[in-house]
Amino acid sequence: FDKDLYEGNDLAGVVTGLAWTPVGGDILFIETNLSKGKGVLTLSGQLGDVMKESAVTALSYLKSHADEIGIDYRVFSQYDLHIHVPQGAVPKDGPSAGITMLVSMASIFTQRKIKKDLAMTGEITLRGKVLPVGGIKEKILAAKRANIKDIIMCYKNQKDVEEIGEEYTKGLTFHYVNYVEEVIEVALLEEKVKKPIVFTFTEDKKDC
Amino acid sequence: FDKDLYEGNDLAGVVTGLAWTPVGGDILFIETNLSKGKGVLTLSGQLGDVMKESAVTALSYLKSHADEIGIDYRVFSQYDLHIHVPQGAVPKDGPSAGITMLVSMASIFTQRKIKKDLAMTGEITLRGKVLPVGGIKEKILAAKRANIKDIIMCYKNQKDVEEIGEEYTKGLTFHYVNYVEEVIEVALLEEKVKKPIVFTFTEDKKDC
Amino acid sequence: FDKDLYEGNDLAGVVTGLAWTPVGGDILFIETNLSKGKGVLTLSGQLGDVMKESAVTALSYLKSHADEIGIDYRVFSQYDLHIHVPQGAVPKDGPSAGITMLVSMASIFTQRKIKKDLAMTGEITLRGKVLPVGGIKEKILAAKRANIKDIIMCYKNQKDVEEIGEEYTKGLTFHYVNYVEEVIEVALLEEKVKKPIVFTFTEDKKDC
Amino acid sequence: FDKDLYEGNDLAGVVTGLAWTPVGGDILFIETNLSKGKGVLTLSGQLGDVMKESAVTALSYLKSHADEIGIDYRVFSQYDLHIHVPQGAVPKDGPSAGITMLVSMASIFTQRKIKKDLAMTGEITLRGKVLPVGGIKEKILAAKRANIKDIIMCYKNQKDVEEIGEEYTKGLTFHYVNYVEEVIEVALLEEKVKKPIVFTFTEDKKDC
Amino acid sequence: FDKDLYEGNDLAGVVTGLAWTPVGGDILFIETNLSKGKGVLTLSGQLGDVMKESAVTALSYLKSHADEIGIDYRVFSQYDLHIHVPQGAVPKDGPSAGITMLVSMASIFTQRKIKKDLAMTGEITLRGKVLPVGGIKEKILAAKRANIKDIIMCYKNQKDVEEIGEEYTKGLTFHYVNYVEEVIEVALLEEKVKKPIVFTFTEDKKDC
Amino acid sequence: FDKDLYEGNDLAGVVTGLAWTPVGGDILFIETNLSKGKGVLTLSGQLGDVMKESAVTALSYLKSHADEIGIDYRVFSQYDLHIHVPQGAVPKDGPSAGITMLVSMASIFTQRKIKKDLAMTGEITLRGKVLPVGGIKEKILAAKRANIKDIIMCYKNQKDVEEIGEEYTKGLTFHYVNYVEEVIEVALLEEKVKKPIVFTFTEDKKDC
Ligand SMILES: [Ca+2]
Ligand SMILES: [Ca+2]
Ligand SMILES: [Ca+2]
Ligand SMILES: [Ca+2]
Ligand SMILES: [Ca+2]
Ligand SMILES: [Ca+2]
Ligand SMILES: [Ca+2]
Ligand SMILES: [Ca+2]
Ligand SMILES: [Ca+2]
Ligand SMILES: [Ca+2]
Ligand SMILES: [Ca+2]
Ligand SMILES: [Ca+2]
Repeated sequence: FDKDLYEGNDLAGVVTGLAWTPVGGDILFIETNLSKGKGVLTLSGQLGDVMKESAVTALSYLKSHADEIGIDYRVFSQYDLHIHVPQGAVPKDGPSAGITMLVSMASIFTQRKIKKDLAMTGEITLRGKVLPVGGIKEKILAAKRANIKDIIMCYKNQKDVEEIGEEYTKGLTFHYVNYVEEVIEVALLEEKVKKPIVFTFTEDKKDC
Repeated sequence: FDKDLYEGNDLAGVVTGLAWTPVGGDILFIETNLSKGKGVLTLSGQLGDVMKESAVTALSYLKSHADEIGIDYRVFSQYDLHIHVPQGAVPKDGPSAGITMLVSMASIFTQRKIKKDLAMTGEITLRGKVLPVGGIKEKILAAKRANIKDIIMCYKNQKDVEEIGEEYTKGLTFHYVNYVEEVIEVALLEEKVKKPIVFTFTEDKKDC
Repeated sequence: FDKDLYEGNDLAGVVTGLAWTPVGGDILFIETNLSKGKGVLTLSGQLGDVMKESAVTALSYLKSHADEIGIDYRVFSQYDLHIHVPQGAVPKDGPSAGITMLVSMASIFTQRKIKKDLAMTGEITLRGKVLPVGGIKEKILAAKRANIKDIIMCYKNQKDVEEIGEEYTKGLTFHYVNYVEEVIEVALLEEKVKKPIVFTFTEDKKDC
Repeated sequence: FDKDLYEGNDLAGVVTGLAWTPVGGDILFIETNLSKGKGVLTLSGQLGDVMKESAVTALSYLKSHADEIGIDYRVFSQYDLHIHVPQGAVPKDGPSAGITMLVSMASIFTQRKIKKDLAMTGEITLRGKVLPVGGIKEKILAAKRANIKDIIMCYKNQKDVEEIGEEYTKGLTFHYVNYVEEVIEVALLEEKVKKPIVFTFTEDKKDC
Repeated sequence: FDKDLYEGNDLAGVVTGLAWTPVGGDILFIETNLSKGKGVLTLSGQLGDVMKESAVTALSYLKSHADEIGIDYRVFSQYDLHIHVPQGAVPKDGPSAGITMLVSMASIFTQRKIKKDLAMTGEITLRGKVLPVGGIKEKILAAKRANIKDIIMCYKNQKDVEEIGEEYTKGLTFHYVNYVEEVIEVALLEEKVKKPIVFTFTEDKKDC
Repeated sequence: FDKDLYEGNDLAGVVTGLAWTPVGGDILFIETNLSKGKGVLTLSGQLGDVMKESAVTALSYLKSHADEIGIDYRVFSQYDLHIHVPQGAVPKDGPSAGITMLVSMASIFTQRKIKKDLAMTGEITLRGKVLPVGGIKEKILAAKRANIKDIIMCYKNQKDVEEIGEEYTKGLTFHYVNYVEEVIEVALLEEKVKKPIVFTFTEDKKDC
């Protein structure tokens, strides 16, 4: 991981996560992309098994909560979804990008903007719980260095934040959550991105 | 495994199991989720081969007993089923979550609530037998710590329970069973969850 | 393998086999289950490659002899077949469950009962020959302990039986066979199980 | 490999091959079976990669020479083909069963009988050449012991036969061949087996 | 890698990349080819996982930006795409061919010529960022030796270029970019290749 | 590899290649076969990954140049193609059979004869370049021993030929080429083979 900086919220589906690495924390970008297709999911960026399962779990959550989040269900079967995590040669794994991937997909499916200067870390479960993750101190240092202002994480990680000296957390706002819907509430703006995708659907497919 | 607490019965498809780990017993949650689809089964949570086979066996049992349990058969081919076992990075295996996964699926397919304060452990077979499992003492200790009140297990595990001092089992009610239908009888309430899924089906598909 | 006891013949598709294990013989149960589907075959119970090939070979035999055995051919493409061999965590392999799996499938496809107190061991070939298998002495001891009364095996195993003292074989009836049709003749009763599956078929599919 | 004996020519698709093993030659049986289906090929009997490629090559040859051999082409897409080589637990590999597998398939597709007391060994190529194989001496001894009278092999193996003392080859007739069509000429009788399969076809499928 | 020379821009889909190898830099050719089909992607040339993910990411980018780039979307589902990187026996990996593969595909899909005497190196991300890569010095030396005149790379690689003595970069024009659209702007000429493919499409497929 | 001799040009799709082996050069035969099907490609003869990629690359080249070469495009989706390289038990790899496989496929698709007494060696690329290969000396010796008269190879291999004493190349005609179309020009006769396949096509498939 090179050390990256926050890069704005112009694009749907690009969300900033926080990663722990053996050489310190870093931010990472989840990039998600839709194209007309048949509901194929592609994952790239040298993702390990746990991280791939996180992505699949996030997608299942969104499918079964599409109405609440405002996603037209037909997008799941009439568009292909690709999630990429740069840099392409760096192996990545672990469940802590769960909420980041979920927000990235929610953004691309709704074309809504992501809150500015925001990063996040947290495991998700299929029913929509957010679980605590490790490496909080390193992740917070990395967030500051990358110009992040707001961070979403699990309530159970609050104690990890409080153990860190205030000089390290000054200027950062922490959004503690227990459920995915709180994550979406914080992360997704009502506003759509510039030039949003105008989804087109064929009539609901029948197998005959 | 961190040590978890019982978390209520508000959601369909979320069932509490008992797990043995090298550092003692713990509860685990089986989460199951349905979304419109084509009958695809997804398993996540770093499940080993034996545990995956348990899930598939439980699903086959439900398919061939759908009428008795009150499941509309079309759900198997017109919805996708995802079973996830948090925490996503912890490898899990063994057959002892068999009945827990079966109850989780039965709940999601019927939208019926799970009995409150209930946990369970037991292998299932394809014909619906419940088989005994190991680690009973540790599992019972974990259940108490997690605020569980009722436990389902195989009759053949009764002797393991009786070997444990009464001070450890006080306050716990044991439901010994031989067959899956007894498990469902104990675990699934008649009452449906709040905001149950309203299943919609296309006419029975023909491969015309 | 724990040591199991014979469990009756109430269910279609549940057949008792004889297994050799490093710690002595045991009986095992083959369980087979049908559900509306598309002809998918699922095998579970930690079966090794040879045992999986046995199952597939047995199924091919039944498909090409469906008329003689009284199986409606459409069941092969309009139902899914699942074969499970408990206990789910015990690895199993070898060809000697061939005839047991074949009888299990024949029973589920015809809904006919299995002869009571019967166990069997023997490899099958695709043309329907029954081949001898090893571990006969241990298997016979296990059969007696499990309350089995009748045993089917290959004629070529008769010499293995005769080498065993009569005190071990007393009370057991041996059915020596050369061909699968003899196995079915002995094992499958005319009588159907209680509440047999009432198969329903769509008209023969055309790929129109 | 146990030592087997020749078993007659009553069944279509059962052909006797000659195998070399570390403990001497043996005969082996290729069994082939057809059932209504979609053109799926199943190979079983613990076959290695080279042997599987031989089977696929033999099938391709038959498909592209169906007319000459008198095979209704629709059988390739409207029936499933299973090739099994007992004994199921014995690993087998090598190209020398090529002509045996080809004759087995030709017999099942045409329902013609195999010449009596015949065995064979030889690699095939896709264009229909027969190539020489090894282990000729051991194979001949095994053929005699198994009561074989006629043996088909490649012309290039004639020198291997001539190196063996006449006392070993007495009573055996050798059919040396260069091409698959000569193999079929020798091995397949005009006569059909008893109760031949009566093939039924749907009209030629259109992907409409 | 043998040392290759630049080979002109007559063909659509043939683009020159810069590679780092243990024995120095080299140019490599990305070759892309379309044929009527169903949207199948084939990658060859002993490409490693990271390089394959680069290709898939480039293709996803093009699919979701087809309109801007002037690609008829139906080409993605009605033609098959093959990307090959000679020499076929040399293993290749890494993300640095990302922009080269993207330009190759953009060229074949639009049938537009590539700028003459041009080479490039740079990772791409799914949202269209260009990332810096390593081995810049060796790559520049290789480009000169191969008669390249123009090189595209990431702005963040400018510092690597400036560290190299001017005698090595004389005669080379560097095009520093941050986004894929700048790469396409530089690399793709308006002019089409001689005898461009005339795409033919069936009406937009419906699944019924 | 046994040492083989040239075997004539009677059959479409059978082409002679030159191989380098640790025990000297040899000729090898590429055999290609078509049968009515759905465009499935089968490769056999224990081919390594590089050699399989060569075959796939050759096929892609032919698909995108079908018109020029005179191939009815529908053959790619309505026939199955099998490429086999005897001897079946000998592992083979490397890119040098690229042009040989391409000529074999071009011959089977057009049913045109191969030039007599011809062998060839050379890698192909997707755009149709022919690349030099190694082992030229050994290959030439093998060609002479096998009664070959004409050899096709890459211009860049000319220097390898010239390094060999004239006594070894006497009687051989070398055809140096840079592009696949030159290979086809030399290798494929206008004349068709005896009894050419009469291709039959269903109307162009629609996914209705
Ligand atoms: Ca970084
Ligand atoms: Ca993590
Ligand atoms: Ca836990
Ligand atoms: Ca267990
Ligand atoms: Ca047991
Ligand atoms: Ca066995
Ligand atoms: Ca044998
Ligand atoms: Ca062999
Ligand atoms: Ca090179
Ligand atoms: Ca690289
Ligand atoms: Ca040879
Ligand atoms: Ca080579």
